[in-house]
Amino acid sequence: MIKVLFAAGWPRWKQYKHALSMALAKAGLEAELSQRHSPDETDYIVYAPNRHFSDFSPYTRAKAVLSLWAGVEDIVTNETLTQPLCRMVDAGLTEGMVEWVTGHVLRHHLGMDAHIVNPEREWIAVPPPLARQRPVTVLGLGELGAACARSLAGLNFPVTGWSRRPKSMRGIRCLAGPDGLEAALDGAQIVVLLLPLTSGTENLLNAARIARLETGAVVINPGRGPLIDDDALIAALDSGQLSRATLDVFRTEPLPADHPFWAHPGVTVTPHIAADTRPATAAQAIAENICRSEAGKPLLHLVDRTTGY
Amino acid sequence: MIKVLFAAGWPRWKQYKHALSMALAKAGLEAELSQRHSPDETDYIVYAPNRHFSDFSPYTRAKAVLSLWAGVEDIVTNETLTQPLCRMVDAGLTEGMVEWVTGHVLRHHLGMDAHIVNPEREWIAVPPPLARQRPVTVLGLGELGAACARSLAGLNFPVTGWSRRPKSMRGIRCLAGPDGLEAALDGAQIVVLLLPLTSGTENLLNAARIARLETGAVVINPGRGPLIDDDALIAALDSGQLSRATLDVFRTEPLPADHPFWAHPGVTVTPHIAADTRPATAAQAIAENICRSEAGKPLLHLVDRTTGY
Repeated sequence: MIKVLFAAGWPRWKQYKHALSMALAKAGLEAELSQRHSPDETDYIVYAPNRHFSDFSPYTRAKAVLSLWAGVEDIVTNETLTQPLCRMVDAGLTEGMVEWVTGHVLRHHLGMDAHIVNPEREWIAVPPPLARQRPVTVLGLGELGAACARSLAGLNFPVTGWSRRPKSMRGIRCLAGPDGLEAALDGAQIVVLLLPLTSGTENLLNAARIARLETGAVVINPGRGPLIDDDALIAALDSGQLSRATLDVFRTEPLPADHPFWAHPGVTVTPHIAADTRPATAAQAIAENICRSEAGKPLLHLVDRTTGY
Repeated sequence: MIKVLFAAGWPRWKQYKHALSMALAKAGLEAELSQRHSPDETDYIVYAPNRHFSDFSPYTRAKAVLSLWAGVEDIVTNETLTQPLCRMVDAGLTEGMVEWVTGHVLRHHLGMDAHIVNPEREWIAVPPPLARQRPVTVLGLGELGAACARSLAGLNFPVTGWSRRPKSMRGIRCLAGPDGLEAALDGAQIVVLLLPLTSGTENLLNAARIARLETGAVVINPGRGPLIDDDALIAALDSGQLSRATLDVFRTEPLPADHPFWAHPGVTVTPHIAADTRPATAAQAIAENICRSEAGKPLLHLVDRTTGY
């Protein structure tokens, strides 16, 4: 009997208990899912950040820690964690992110806000340019960034993608490394941030890099709050270097009511909803990884502890 | 020398003069484009509705009338028009329409408006459902409707398409005829109108048909204003049967400042910008049709005068 410890907090237990048990059974695993397995009997740990669980060291038998979250910056620096750590890659999460990113890129491309809020009843019949005239840059070409870049390219946007390591994607101009970053930002009209949060990506979008975008550009951040220098973002919106920003993630969440982002007319705040792990599909991803491990196959989406994602 | 009469009004002449001359030359046609060819020397008429041109009867030599517009309801009933009439099918127009429709469907799907206008700074972290849980119906599967249906299906929306005559499209549930219309509307959460305006489609979306949609559904009309019974639309928004409507076309344009659509909180008015014929690509479409005609091939996008499109 495989013992799977659910160490992701009580509210998630309610969401996941049934979905995970079903997925484990469907995968043909004889597994027992519980919040109460003792350290010396636990084979796998399903984890999401919660204040009741921070010491992995007693779990000497555990073969893997399976994160319910795609972003693992809160756990990757935990020194008690010596077990293999896997990020969540969930089809539902990817789909949700593609929908949110594609929707907000189109919203800014089409200039929708001027029609949604139009108290003067202005009728200015100037069609927007076509997508193929609107360069978009996606920072990060992981599971989520790559899926969003493909969706935007499918709508004819000229898409540039940037990643730390060189990648190649059909129909996408792929750039990499520090030099590639400057070139990826040059002249972009919309930039989407989908990088993991690491010491190398904190404040990546700073004043100097914002200055490389086309005047009046739009920043869309569904990645992680600290990827952006908040003060530089506000200053660029005030100067007109940026026309708008749509932000889904923040240094502090929920975003405090007195934060300047709420008040700024150029900023749209969405409450960390761009992508959510869905219990049904996430449970399948976890069951699949346990199956692979039991069959002696390599784990999927293993985190590289040196790079942090 | 082929004589092409430009009968689409002065403002358009400025937009099209260069683009059309270039496209005709590039197509290898020895053609002379002018606003002043006499009826007995005119080989082709490039047309858009304008108050200086309404009598086609003197143009006995003309082999075709080539509309700059996709919608031909203003000319199809002109009894002096006996020449073959071709609708505009322009790649730029189709692209623009796909972008507008996809953008507004995603806007409503994601519930963006609640974040764009959020004076209370509410943080309600409830992600929207996935697109694959949101049935969308596209009324009309012509050039524009089919392209929009394909784009939405590509984003995983379950798409039902309806057309007068039976069609078949991969990944789209295609229904046709009067019975198919009721089934196409049943339970749809978002409905997009891309039908031509004919005597058979006027007021097509009336109170009885709106009642078939799911409670709280959204209506998106980038087709033609009179496809919708305006009073029924307002009543359905007031009752909650519809939650929102986004309208790009109206019985009178520009929409008069005292029209109830402007004041209704559930209605977004866009100023007939969903799709615009672009001179560069439209000129190519016209040159191609003249080439075909000169080579004895059938004209493209010929209007059926009995159905009106």
